[in-house]
Amino acid sequence: MNEGAMQRYALTLNKFLDHAAKWHPRAVVVTAAGDGTVERSDYATLRRRARRVSALLARRGIGKGDRVATLAWNSRAHMEVWYGIMGMGAVCHTLNPRLTAEQSAEMARQSGATVLVASADLALLAERIAKLTPEVESLFIIDGEGRLPGLNAALEEVEEEAAGWGEFDENLASGLCFTSGTTGAPKGVLYSHRSGYLHTLRLLQADVIGLTSAETVLVAVPMFHANAWGLPFAAPAVGARMVLPGRYLDGASLTRLMAREGVTLAVGVPTVWLGVLDHIEEEGGELPSLKRILVGGAPMPAALMKRLEQRLGVVVQTSWGMTELSPLGSITPVSEPERDAASAGRVAVGVDLLLTDEYGTALPRQRDVEGHLRVRGPAVVAQYLGQQDSALDAQGWFATGDLARLDEDGRLTITGRAKDLIKSGGEWINPAELEAIANALPQIAQVAVIGRADPRWGERPLLVVETKADQNIEDQEILDAMRGRVASWWLPDSVVRVARMPLAATGKIDKKRLRAAYGHV
Amino acid sequence: MNEGAMQRYALTLNKFLDHAAKWHPRAVVVTAAGDGTVERSDYATLRRRARRVSALLARRGIGKGDRVATLAWNSRAHMEVWYGIMGMGAVCHTLNPRLTAEQSAEMARQSGATVLVASADLALLAERIAKLTPEVESLFIIDGEGRLPGLNAALEEVEEEAAGWGEFDENLASGLCFTSGTTGAPKGVLYSHRSGYLHTLRLLQADVIGLTSAETVLVAVPMFHANAWGLPFAAPAVGARMVLPGRYLDGASLTRLMAREGVTLAVGVPTVWLGVLDHIEEEGGELPSLKRILVGGAPMPAALMKRLEQRLGVVVQTSWGMTELSPLGSITPVSEPERDAASAGRVAVGVDLLLTDEYGTALPRQRDVEGHLRVRGPAVVAQYLGQQDSALDAQGWFATGDLARLDEDGRLTITGRAKDLIKSGGEWINPAELEAIANALPQIAQVAVIGRADPRWGERPLLVVETKADQNIEDQEILDAMRGRVASWWLPDSVVRVARMPLAATGKIDKKRLRAAYGHV
Repeated sequence: MNEGAMQRYALTLNKFLDHAAKWHPRAVVVTAAGDGTVERSDYATLRRRARRVSALLARRGIGKGDRVATLAWNSRAHMEVWYGIMGMGAVCHTLNPRLTAEQSAEMARQSGATVLVASADLALLAERIAKLTPEVESLFIIDGEGRLPGLNAALEEVEEEAAGWGEFDENLASGLCFTSGTTGAPKGVLYSHRSGYLHTLRLLQADVIGLTSAETVLVAVPMFHANAWGLPFAAPAVGARMVLPGRYLDGASLTRLMAREGVTLAVGVPTVWLGVLDHIEEEGGELPSLKRILVGGAPMPAALMKRLEQRLGVVVQTSWGMTELSPLGSITPVSEPERDAASAGRVAVGVDLLLTDEYGTALPRQRDVEGHLRVRGPAVVAQYLGQQDSALDAQGWFATGDLARLDEDGRLTITGRAKDLIKSGGEWINPAELEAIANALPQIAQVAVIGRADPRWGERPLLVVETKADQNIEDQEILDAMRGRVASWWLPDSVVRVARMPLAATGKIDKKRLRAAYGHV
Repeated sequence: MNEGAMQRYALTLNKFLDHAAKWHPRAVVVTAAGDGTVERSDYATLRRRARRVSALLARRGIGKGDRVATLAWNSRAHMEVWYGIMGMGAVCHTLNPRLTAEQSAEMARQSGATVLVASADLALLAERIAKLTPEVESLFIIDGEGRLPGLNAALEEVEEEAAGWGEFDENLASGLCFTSGTTGAPKGVLYSHRSGYLHTLRLLQADVIGLTSAETVLVAVPMFHANAWGLPFAAPAVGARMVLPGRYLDGASLTRLMAREGVTLAVGVPTVWLGVLDHIEEEGGELPSLKRILVGGAPMPAALMKRLEQRLGVVVQTSWGMTELSPLGSITPVSEPERDAASAGRVAVGVDLLLTDEYGTALPRQRDVEGHLRVRGPAVVAQYLGQQDSALDAQGWFATGDLARLDEDGRLTITGRAKDLIKSGGEWINPAELEAIANALPQIAQVAVIGRADPRWGERPLLVVETKADQNIEDQEILDAMRGRVASWWLPDSVVRVARMPLAATGKIDKKRLRAAYGHV
């Protein structure tokens, strides 16, 4: 017998809620209701109700591996449904309320979901999705009652039964999320219990998020995309208090919520914190309990980071991730002495990185050069939903599509997206560098640089600009800001003004639409 | 297909050193040489040499599952051998230099080790063990050369080859350690890569040890027992600097080492810190870099904890563990507001606890009562080496043999050992409570209370006392200290004075020997 003689223990996600309910039963889970009030629950209650959700789904014929879709904001009710679905071995397919009914229906068809669970204020959208997806047999509303069947009433019909709670292999699928699809059709990533469990343990490392039971964490990243960065698993795993903001992520709502609930750690994309700062600077106010803001999902402007640190006295932790990475890839450790808005931080054990050339061959030198970033680890996708081909190369690496650089000490900087690169006269132009210069101009709201077909050079850069509401800036002034800081042949040939930059459902600029509109002469 | 579509990644222990060598290659590993000098290495070098150890062992016919014994202090060389053995899929059986040759030979026979690797200053003992164990075919000295074959010379013969580095299933056995055997014959615990990996991720949680790359950790718990509390895995996993003290754990040696190397976290049993404190109070000195001391392995005296906090300005983290638990069971989180020397802290996800009656039936109430402690988790033993029976009950719980209490908030206190309980007139007396009272008297060095056979009561408590070198105390004075604080029938009937308390090889009081000497009239 060559095996060790230690206990069997499947790495299943229900164990985080089991731990919280047993060891931190009264740690609160707060949900903002939208009218300024909040609803309070705790982990013991949340687990009891999650097990009832499991029992209800089992009674409706849902079994292991079956897909159940959710369409909801961040709330206690959504968490109960998450754990209810995953805890019985079904797959939680999170739909994005910012997509059209047609887009969501296409994803639901791909996943084969037969049950859809939605927030009350998304009932109309949910009905349209259900109508477009004949496979969907049942539709429940998770918060409140109305014309459609409510989950609360249905839960009263069932007992808190086991329904196979946690009784399955750790490699069973647990969740499904589609990529944002800014560079191609959205692709489904099918997470497993094991990948989610190991991702969570990585988050809990002191050099990663390092959540403790003494923290109160505001989860201002959506549970409907990329697992809300794993926080609905990490927080119960240590018994941290949770504050779930519901639908409204504006500065006023979040500032009030954080102040009232004594939030110590707040998690969200940069624009969310811009809203909070603007609100506080206009209306006044303090957030004395707030110690740390974790940002990711988009490049962090250096000026915003400085303002947050100075005005709120917080540590800003930058990070990099992808839907395909569960999602966290790298993060600036809290113990890191140097803080740089442009840095994606470091990787923790369980994530490995490789820089390659455009064909996937490892660069001979891995430090202080730019390369195409590949990644490996137990929480990294191996194959997209419904695809025959592996998503990995022959050595098991996943090509992120990002361009990146590693410094001598192993700190990662994301320098652009490979698909956004513009090939002009056989040489590459990186639009991210041009965008960073333009973004620093005070009049600019958002910019994008895309390639436009050019009969002589193949492609030439085109600058798309949205200015702030009451601001003006000449084209020449923007180009002058770039001149001398990049090679002269990198300078955009033309500038297009837009009233509103097209955004994908995840809030990222939709370059696919820009290229369709302006990419050809 | 019901499985998630994420990457395969085996949880094998070599990955911690791989991570350190790639992302923290120059983080130092310092070893004290004993003559006041130190030797410096780093993770990149350590990994290169560990892979040569693998190659050398492979050349000597060692394969996956084979056992290789070590007999060594905490040193860079011992770490290389650990990783060299485990990295190729062989099993590292750590022998305790404080045991007799006969005792170690008996364990080596049980494990079936064919190679023994030893520190130079343990060469004589190693030769005696090898002579008593015909199965041992090769003997190497890991540090320095001499009459016996040295590992350094042998490593020069081989190239840094892969030798199957990390290429095996995560359930493969990785290490073997025998329990200290204070209450019965020592029993072997066969760890797996998976159990060690998951134990390490638990240590890295911010609410557990929470090691970061900014720390310098002194490992003053032996690598030859219970994995040095997992630190040789946890430190490279985050790139923390390591300080390995070699043979000498006296106050003067450790104080000098910690001051010179800027140690921030020091880990060891309470008596080690008593030595450091006594040294500093006699000779003066400061340890300004030291922020935290982690203690375990024996009850922490409240007075010692207070002295450490006041004199050194450190946070003292108490913990509870067992060889069978890899070893960490529970720990007081750094974020815990209340610090109590008697508390074993809390459990993190991956450890679950149950209080039972003496027959193993769960107590109806799990809080604020004393019970027999059972434990469950992926780093908990399932079966002892060479035993046919499971070490678990029908529900999968391991009976620790400890008595414990959980408070309303889930904090654990170990209140005694079940086997140490004294049954007097059909009722139980807990010697640990009597010992705690006596231990608080300033004249006392060490005490133990054991049961002595009694024709009328079955057993009656007997107090064994070792006073401090220059101190005296009357029997009556000790018993008076107990009077009124315990039931009158708990008071020991007689007192025995010993010049030196018998200790097991792990430093714990050997009650088995005390019972043999004094347990019968």
